[in-house]
Amino acid sequence: MPRKPPRALLQRIRLVVLDVDGTMTDGRLYYGAQGEQMKAFDVRDGHGLRLLQLLSGVKLAVLTGRRADLVMQRCRELSIDQVVGQSRAKGAAIAKICADLGIPPADSAFMGDDVNDLPALRKVALSCAPADAAPEVLRCVRWVSQRPAGRGAVRELCELLLAAKALWPPPDDELADR
Amino acid sequence: MPRKPPRALLQRIRLVVLDVDGTMTDGRLYYGAQGEQMKAFDVRDGHGLRLLQLLSGVKLAVLTGRRADLVMQRCRELSIDQVVGQSRAKGAAIAKICADLGIPPADSAFMGDDVNDLPALRKVALSCAPADAAPEVLRCVRWVSQRPAGRGAVRELCELLLAAKALWPPPDDELADR
Amino acid sequence: MPRKPPRALLQRIRLVVLDVDGTMTDGRLYYGAQGEQMKAFDVRDGHGLRLLQLLSGVKLAVLTGRRADLVMQRCRELSIDQVVGQSRAKGAAIAKICADLGIPPADSAFMGDDVNDLPALRKVALSCAPADAAPEVLRCVRWVSQRPAGRGAVRELCELLLAAKALWPPPDDELADR
Amino acid sequence: MPRKPPRALLQRIRLVVLDVDGTMTDGRLYYGAQGEQMKAFDVRDGHGLRLLQLLSGVKLAVLTGRRADLVMQRCRELSIDQVVGQSRAKGAAIAKICADLGIPPADSAFMGDDVNDLPALRKVALSCAPADAAPEVLRCVRWVSQRPAGRGAVRELCELLLAAKALWPPPDDELADR
Repeated sequence: MPRKPPRALLQRIRLVVLDVDGTMTDGRLYYGAQGEQMKAFDVRDGHGLRLLQLLSGVKLAVLTGRRADLVMQRCRELSIDQVVGQSRAKGAAIAKICADLGIPPADSAFMGDDVNDLPALRKVALSCAPADAAPEVLRCVRWVSQRPAGRGAVRELCELLLAAKALWPPPDDELADR
Repeated sequence: MPRKPPRALLQRIRLVVLDVDGTMTDGRLYYGAQGEQMKAFDVRDGHGLRLLQLLSGVKLAVLTGRRADLVMQRCRELSIDQVVGQSRAKGAAIAKICADLGIPPADSAFMGDDVNDLPALRKVALSCAPADAAPEVLRCVRWVSQRPAGRGAVRELCELLLAAKALWPPPDDELADR
Repeated sequence: MPRKPPRALLQRIRLVVLDVDGTMTDGRLYYGAQGEQMKAFDVRDGHGLRLLQLLSGVKLAVLTGRRADLVMQRCRELSIDQVVGQSRAKGAAIAKICADLGIPPADSAFMGDDVNDLPALRKVALSCAPADAAPEVLRCVRWVSQRPAGRGAVRELCELLLAAKALWPPPDDELADR
Repeated sequence: MPRKPPRALLQRIRLVVLDVDGTMTDGRLYYGAQGEQMKAFDVRDGHGLRLLQLLSGVKLAVLTGRRADLVMQRCRELSIDQVVGQSRAKGAAIAKICADLGIPPADSAFMGDDVNDLPALRKVALSCAPADAAPEVLRCVRWVSQRPAGRGAVRELCELLLAAKALWPPPDDELADR
């Protein structure tokens, strides 16, 4: 299991990019007669992402190999502007996200769970995976959360970054403002 | 882990206020193309809340930081009149609920699971959290259920209060009437 | 934990009545803006109920304290004719089901998970509960499944009854016919 | 627990047939007022099936005893052409699938979880079951996955076959192309 990344690296992170299925969700795809109908996100992952933006100014982006429409509404609520869908080449896609936002991969983190995330994970300074990621991914990343995908993995990453900047736990008046 | 609260405190409680996501549910937010579509409540939590009202006359309210529309129908079934949604300052919101119902915070309980519930948890006499609440919340509350959120945490609180008033388990004729 | 009921009792059972939420499902109630929208049944529970009817001729009924409309389509598929909903007095309701079908409670089984099922459980010869039923129910019933509700509890009851009649596991040609 | 099948058998497999409920899903059937509404598939199972087709040319088919319409859209995404629904005699159905595709049962695999899958499992050279299959099935099959149905069982089978052909883990440029 990878150890905790050095504090200097965590403090440098200004962009967090997230895979969706198997990272922000537990990987379940709910299909009805018209195709995929629902995804299940985690409320505390969302709180963490909001606090990360509000308290530290870190930028967020989402990168998925599948259709993005089931993700859009959730991303809008979380003020995530960069949402890249149907991406078959995630290595190139994350390079483009970094360029668009003007933040180099050396100051960026990516969390993903499956082998198609490997090219993107290899590009960023802080590669992350949920506890229940594919073994090939767990072996390659810099940091692994203790909680599984869709059940706190993303929240744990938010807290890791906030704590490195001495912003976790947040003060009460910040909570009241949220 | 906090110990069981003294019986005198439990007997004094006349109002129970509940957070929704991560307390009445397991924290999963089911999103479709039009945004959030469903929440999963627990049938035995509901039975407990009904019995708490019917047998002891305790009043119930719901306090959520998110949209309340997915909660309304469930609250109506459970005869919960006070439903406060989109509350970003839960400390002020719970004070208002207490004032509206004429029951002081000293006679009230609140159950919540995340850091944004802390201001409200600090205001009431009986602060409660589900077993799987955030660590920052578990450290601060008076009572922690053994069962997780959306899978019996609320039921356990109902039984705790009813047992303190010698109303649990309920007599058969009360069950038949429900 | 109750022991296995005597074979003579199991062989006598000609009617199996089932609670829905927390027995045929895991107790999750999925609510949308229009109220309850979905229930999650288990495919192997369904196979067991079909085999129980086809191989042994045992009759099936469903008894729920809630609206029955989300249950009707599933019951139709499983050829369950007797579906009684919104029943607040389950003891009286099960007596009526037995009378309607001409099968005495002494030859009937009921599976339920919560305190409001107790009056019905006390009326039948074979009272059953899923592994994760309320403690008050587990203490009172004749037989407890090893699997939880909505994940095999009902299937286990079907196999118990079929095995007592030397009909489990079923022969291959019976399976082909299903 | 069955041991790993010999490499020669794994290398010979040119057709993989899958049961749906309890194999590609965890067996939950989500019902609304209009009947069955949703099934939950696993995103990593899907990635595995795509890689199996792309890297090794193995053909895929789906065989279910239930309605196929909730499966069609998912199968289309995964380029699974042969989808056979409402099959009550799975032994005959798998023989027909093999004949239609011109691949003998001796070069085929089938994964199923319940007793009605036994006739089909007995027909193929490589019979498989998820970790949480019915005991009668676990006792009869050639290979059992370590992961449960709908949570990686199918993915594990894909990796087993790819690894036997020295195609797992896949090279990065194959991933980029997906």
